Amino acid sequence: MLLLNLDHVGMAVRDLDEAIEAFRRRFGVVPISRETVAEQGVEEAMIAIGGSHVQLLQPLADDTPVGRFLERRGEGVHHVAYAVPDIEAALEHLQQEGAELIDHEPRVGGGGHRIAFVHPRGAHGVLTELVELR
Amino acid sequence: MLLLNLDHVGMAVRDLDEAIEAFRRRFGVVPISRETVAEQGVEEAMIAIGGSHVQLLQPLADDTPVGRFLERRGEGVHHVAYAVPDIEAALEHLQQEGAELIDHEPRVGGGGHRIAFVHPRGAHGVLTELVELR
Repeated sequence: MLLLNLDHVGMAVRDLDEAIEAFRRRFGVVPISRETVAEQGVEEAMIAIGGSHVQLLQPLADDTPVGRFLERRGEGVHHVAYAVPDIEAALEHLQQEGAELIDHEPRVGGGGHRIAFVHPRGAHGVLTELVELR
Repeated sequence: MLLLNLDHVGMAVRDLDEAIEAFRRRFGVVPISRETVAEQGVEEAMIAIGGSHVQLLQPLADDTPVGRFLERRGEGVHHVAYAVPDIEAALEHLQQEGAELIDHEPRVGGGGHRIAFVHPRGAHGVLTELVELR
């Protein structure tokens, strides 16, 4: 498999406006995009930092993956996303290597990109996202 | 403050050799460096992914920050590190903005770089490292 980049670190936050303002004040960075991704139950903002990004995620409801994460763990890093050139090939390879896939087929995520998640079990506790940027 | 890059995501692992091998098999990536940083109580490996890195951290003992993290949370993302051009200026700015600093003065971290940590409290639950790469 080829990894093109560490595309972003997704952080679960309770209040997106407050988190954006905190990043602006502390680090002088502002979002390049902000959108609601209803299918994933989040409103998200993407902040470019060098060649990578911080993605701030506020759940749309408690009964969503990010809402349950906040309930269980509190605010913090939710997932790490790698850019890949061919997401089907990447998923096939990971399955051959025994990774536990959450998404066996790509779905559409923020920015209209095709994405898929790999379970943190057996992956050193890190929820991992693949993003196909083409 | 200026952030040059999302330098790395630090992941706490129980077995560094096993984690390196898992990243090699799953993602086809291998460390560009590996070292013991006694002052931080870790053996660490840095894996380049695009313009950023994954840093794998194995504690040297249970009674270390990463050892206690593993005990409390299990394996997972331990911290997120941003590259800054001037770490003293960055720390001064963060203090003015009310951030809770763990290191009020830079210390020497992996690769001989000057680093400092910012507490996750009041920072959306994310332990944050600043790295001066010059």
